Amino acid sequence: MPKIVDHKKQKEKIAKATWSVIKKVGIEKASVRTIAEEAELSVGALRHYFKTQSELLQFTMKLASERVNERISSLTFSEDVLEDICSVLYELLPLDKERKEEMEVYFEFTKKSFVDSNIIAIRNQIYKELELGISRCIEYLIQSGKASPTLSIPLEVARLFALIDGLALHGLMNEIEEEKIKEIVKLHVQSLCK
Amino acid sequence: MPKIVDHKKQKEKIAKATWSVIKKVGIEKASVRTIAEEAELSVGALRHYFKTQSELLQFTMKLASERVNERISSLTFSEDVLEDICSVLYELLPLDKERKEEMEVYFEFTKKSFVDSNIIAIRNQIYKELELGISRCIEYLIQSGKASPTLSIPLEVARLFALIDGLALHGLMNEIEEEKIKEIVKLHVQSLCK
Repeated sequence: MPKIVDHKKQKEKIAKATWSVIKKVGIEKASVRTIAEEAELSVGALRHYFKTQSELLQFTMKLASERVNERISSLTFSEDVLEDICSVLYELLPLDKERKEEMEVYFEFTKKSFVDSNIIAIRNQIYKELELGISRCIEYLIQSGKASPTLSIPLEVARLFALIDGLALHGLMNEIEEEKIKEIVKLHVQSLCK
Repeated sequence: MPKIVDHKKQKEKIAKATWSVIKKVGIEKASVRTIAEEAELSVGALRHYFKTQSELLQFTMKLASERVNERISSLTFSEDVLEDICSVLYELLPLDKERKEEMEVYFEFTKKSFVDSNIIAIRNQIYKELELGISRCIEYLIQSGKASPTLSIPLEVARLFALIDGLALHGLMNEIEEEKIKEIVKLHVQSLCK
């Protein structure tokens, strides 16, 4: 009787192994062979799921993105618009081990995309997803009637997004404590209000 | 008669070669040998100036930092406090080829510092220098009497610094145009005023 393999689980196992290898040795050295070893699979078995390294990386980043979305979906929202927006933004910041891991991989991808055109499509997709999340926060603030009426949406989305990525970067560098990151996010969201 | 060597020029030549190699192949592969080749020197000659790779990298980042400081010193200031602060901040953003190069090296260093403890001291020094520059901008705004009286200096320094690094990152990713970067910096500085 052939082994029954749960393909979804296998793919996730491989993605997790990829992630773990990237963190250990960096994307440059994250070869299919190293990832197969980490996932305790043969190179052939791995290739069954992902034809190219690019496909594998794409899946890994998608998994990270899904993790973020799942956490945001499972947030319990309060009646306080500002607090709710901050809670969503915190999910994009390295405020615990899980989010730190995601950010490290995200910056690896970003850095890699400067020199490798194969990775640009994946990175653009993640960038657009994050930008959409940020713009929803700004829209929610406006719909709630709390936003300053002179707000320029495209500029405020880009400003908040840059602030979030800058804070993520400084957080990963251990140059800014988690509490201060949260205070800055609160201060910024507050500054967008009437 | 022995050759007369201008040591300062030699060191700068080596630093420039280091920079160029880092941009081409990344810090991981920026070996003393590759850098010596790029600078058209022997490995021995290079070691005369820099005993270790760490010393060489430190010098290269210092050169970048000096370039930024020189540009800021040579800025012609107007009577407009906000405009002057923006001009200083623009020097920390990838708004032209020279500044793009510096940012790429800066992010390479930052990324490398996540996994290599030897580089952390260099990175911390650059971080502190940049933070000092940002805090001078905030102090200048306060001294001019234009700043909002409720401004929290430590939070505003960290917020502006994160915004600048986030904008630099998105600029390097070609996700945001130069004019928009400038508009956001202006908007942010304006938002700190009464």
